[in-house]
This record gives sequence, structure tokens and C-alpha cells, in this order.
Amino acid sequence: MNRTEFDAWMQSETDAVEASLEAWVPPDAPAALGVAMRYGVLDGGKRIRPLLVLAAASAVHGLRAAALRAACAVELIHAYSLVHDDMPCMDDDVLRRGKPTVHVQFGEAQAMLAGDAMQALAFEVLTPAPEIVPPALQARLCALLARAAGYNGMAGGQAIDLASIGKPLDERTLRDMHHRKTGALLQASVLMGAACSSEVSAAQWSALSDYGDALGLAFQVVDDILDVTQASETLGKTAGKDLDNNKPTYVTVLGLDAARRHANELRDVAQAALARSGLHDAAWLSVLADRVVDREN
Amino acid sequence: MNRTEFDAWMQSETDAVEASLEAWVPPDAPAALGVAMRYGVLDGGKRIRPLLVLAAASAVHGLRAAALRAACAVELIHAYSLVHDDMPCMDDDVLRRGKPTVHVQFGEAQAMLAGDAMQALAFEVLTPAPEIVPPALQARLCALLARAAGYNGMAGGQAIDLASIGKPLDERTLRDMHHRKTGALLQASVLMGAACSSEVSAAQWSALSDYGDALGLAFQVVDDILDVTQASETLGKTAGKDLDNNKPTYVTVLGLDAARRHANELRDVAQAALARSGLHDAAWLSVLADRVVDREN
Repeated sequence: MNRTEFDAWMQSETDAVEASLEAWVPPDAPAALGVAMRYGVLDGGKRIRPLLVLAAASAVHGLRAAALRAACAVELIHAYSLVHDDMPCMDDDVLRRGKPTVHVQFGEAQAMLAGDAMQALAFEVLTPAPEIVPPALQARLCALLARAAGYNGMAGGQAIDLASIGKPLDERTLRDMHHRKTGALLQASVLMGAACSSEVSAAQWSALSDYGDALGLAFQVVDDILDVTQASETLGKTAGKDLDNNKPTYVTVLGLDAARRHANELRDVAQAALARSGLHDAAWLSVLADRVVDREN
Repeated sequence: MNRTEFDAWMQSETDAVEASLEAWVPPDAPAALGVAMRYGVLDGGKRIRPLLVLAAASAVHGLRAAALRAACAVELIHAYSLVHDDMPCMDDDVLRRGKPTVHVQFGEAQAMLAGDAMQALAFEVLTPAPEIVPPALQARLCALLARAAGYNGMAGGQAIDLASIGKPLDERTLRDMHHRKTGALLQASVLMGAACSSEVSAAQWSALSDYGDALGLAFQVVDDILDVTQASETLGKTAGKDLDNNKPTYVTVLGLDAARRHANELRDVAQAALARSGLHDAAWLSVLADRVVDREN
């Protein structure tokens, strides 16, 4: 696998996700709701979660129609969480993906509704007619996504985040928070991709689960590092906001150097899990783990 | 079907829903998120949507385990919408089901997260292990619920509602708004109950769909009537708030007497659809249509 080949794959898959979201996020939803939803999810972001879904599906030769829907559903959940997270009662942020946040652009009420509708749309995308995706697979994908998004996953992590502002956290609590807040959905992305094939063994599933777990944590550690080392223009969102908000991060808990070492250790854990899976076509997952750690925004 | 028999059935089913929600809405979700979720959904409300699910499931002799999950999932969606709808950026209401609203009790951020987590939990409840509910039925229930909750249903209706404040609406636009905002989820309740059996014919499905449609609209017309005729103590929520918020309602558009006549017409439409279904055990659905129109809160 050379880098050029990966980049071509990534571009092609990102285009496919963009085109699908373009088709599935309704331009004509009532009272400009669709406009706000599209603003919140189209044409922005690194699409790391969809790429993980599609890389995992590719590694297991999963059903393409299901994988593309899973990729878009996961991104819809991620995008809705950003819309809500940016609101004044949460992080009160005005800049996201280099644009004014949804509530700045459309008002708070519309932003809240758009986020709510994006979450519902994720499950709508996962449940097309039975001839498009087998119903049992639809149910499996909904099960994985709902659990990753909910109280025991992303929403639960955000609640810990909210409760921890201004408080010292030990590394264990910080890890638990991020495990839920960011990790659960990244891990679910890998597993939803893997679920698109019925040929995945329990051992492979477990290895991919470990890969997703390590990668999810690595992603957050790197996020914390970038928050203090990069300018807002590079990030496309407000830099240094965790510090400003007095939020504990891997950098405040471990220090910058130890955080960097930790990110690399987690990359190694992810790569080892991938090797353990014995999947022959997991090269894209492998490059993705590198990219997550080596990224600059 | 005598009234005593119906009341006993209703009490027994409401208890079953309450016990299931008690079990499924987590007390131990992180950082008091579970406490806020439980506050928002337990021990309150008329449970009209769960009762519609269970009455429809009973009419078609549907799978009990699936029906109970569908009943709780629909109620979770309804309850989350109330939590978000009451927030300052929306209706800014402080009283719901006779208690302080969730954001008054727990803060806005926690209320938003609790609502978000309740929506995810609805889909989690619908997707248990395959031996509990057949996966194809899980997928069908998720499909119905996602569409009723999303941009083309409840969230879309709320967006129209938001955009219509202070504007004159004709009856057609008002009906479209309510068809989505309240009607979609009530209709979906009936259809999710019906989906719990695989023996429902296309004609029966269509008749139940018409029943749910008429009942959903009747529910909203009666809501609008009660908003101007009942005191807050009876309603358990702030009375007269549509007028205060300068929102168009069936009463402002049609007048009180015509609104009452319209509610009765819709009841007749619902009962006629039920008769057309030819289902022998639809008595509870029939009484529910009467109760929706004759209720005092």
C-alpha cells in the first residue's frame, strides 16, 4: 500500500460519502430545517468516521450499500453532536469547520431542531427498503449506532465532560470520559463496517473492536495536543478553547511530551490489533491509524 | 367492551410501560445524565402513545416483547421532544407534567444532552438481542420511528411551528404542521403496534394508518381547545401558552365551536377506519379514539 493509492481511495470514498449525504439530507425539509441540517453536515470535516466504516467494510468485503449508509449515519450522528455541542448552553462556540456554527447562522432553536432531526435521519438512512440492505443487518447497524451515540457512549461522555469543567481529573476518569465521548463512535464506525459482512469471526470482531478502541483514544489525545499546538485557521475551529474553558485534557493531565508518547503507543496498540485480526485487506485501516496520529488538524 | 374493562386494561398496560421504562432508562448513566433522563420520562404523562402501540398490537395479536419495546421507544421520543421543546431557546416553559421542566431542574446543557440521549435510547430499546425480537421486526420498527421523529415528521413540524410564530396560518398549513409535529408520532405508534404481527394485510395496514392519521389530528385539535379552556393545574403544564406565544392554533383559526365540531368529525373518521380494518379485537383502539377527544387534560 503506497500513500498515493491510499489518497486516491480516500478521495474517492470521501466523494461517495459527500454525494450520498447530498442525496439523503433533505434540501426540502419544512421551514428551512433542511437548510440548517445540510449546513451542519455537508461539505466539511475530515470524514474520519465514514472512512473508518468504509475501510473496515473493505477489509471484510462487506456489503457496499450497507457500508455507505453506515458511513453517512455515523457522520450524521457526529455532525449533530457538534451542532448541539457548539450551542451557548454547552461550549458556546462560534466557529466550526471554518464557518459560523449552526446556531450563529440559523438561531438556537433551529440549531437544536436540526441536530435532533439529524440524529433521527441517521436511523432513517440505516433502515431503507429490505431489498437494499437485509433487515437483519439494518437492525445490527441500528443497535451498534444507538449504543455508541447514547448514554453509555457519546452523550454520556459529554455529560462527564460537562460535569468536569474546572475540576481536576485523574487520567483514568479522563480516559473514561473520552472513551465514551469520542471513542465510542469511532469504535462503532469500525464495527459497523465490519458488520457489513456476515463472514467475520468472533476473533476478528474482537481484534477490530480493540483496533477501534485504541484508535478512538488516540484520536482524542491528538485532538488535545492540536488544541494547544495549532492555530484556529489550521483547525477550522477555535483553538485553545479547552484551556479557555478550563477543561481537563490529556495535555493538562499528562503534559505535552507524555501526551505525544501516549498517542504513539495507542497507534501501536491499534496496529497490533489489526495484525491480530489476520485480515488481508486491512491496509486502509492501518494507514488510517497512522493518519489519525500524524494529522495536523 | 365496557369502560371498567378498558380502564383495567389501561392501568395494567400503563404499569407495564412504567416498569419497562424504569428498567431501561438507566439510573447509573454518567454524571447524573441518567437522573435527568429518568426525570424527563418516568412517572408522568398520559402515555397515550404507548397505549396506542399496545392497543394496536393487541388488535393484531402482535409479539408482546416487541410491542412493549415499541411502546417505550415511542414514549422516549415523545418525552425527549418535550424536554427540548421546553428549553429557553424554544418555548421557554417552566412547568411540565406538574413539575419544573428538565432544564429548570438540571440546567440547559444537561437537558439538551438528556434529550439527545433519550432519542438514542429509543433506538437502543428497539434493537435488543435477536432472540428477544426478530431482527427484521427490529429494523421495521426503527424505520417507522425514525421517519416519524425526523425532518418529515415531528422535528419538521416543530420547525414549521417555530417559523409560524406571530404569523397568520390558513387551516391547510396548520394541518400540515400538526400532521408532522404531533400526528406523525401518534400514527407511527399505531403502525408500530400493527407491525408487531406479520399477519396484517395491506388493507388492514392502510385502515390502521388512516385511523392513526385522524386520531393524531384529533389529539392536536383537542390540545388546542384545552389550552384555552383548562387551567394549568388540570393540564399539568402552562395553560394559554399558545396564545401568549402568539401561535396559531385550531381555536384561533377555526374558533372554539368549530374546533370542537372538527375534533368530533375526526373521531368519526378514526372509528370508520377502524371498522374498515375488519379487525375483531380493535375495541381498545376504539375506546382510545373516544378518550383522546373526550379528555380534559
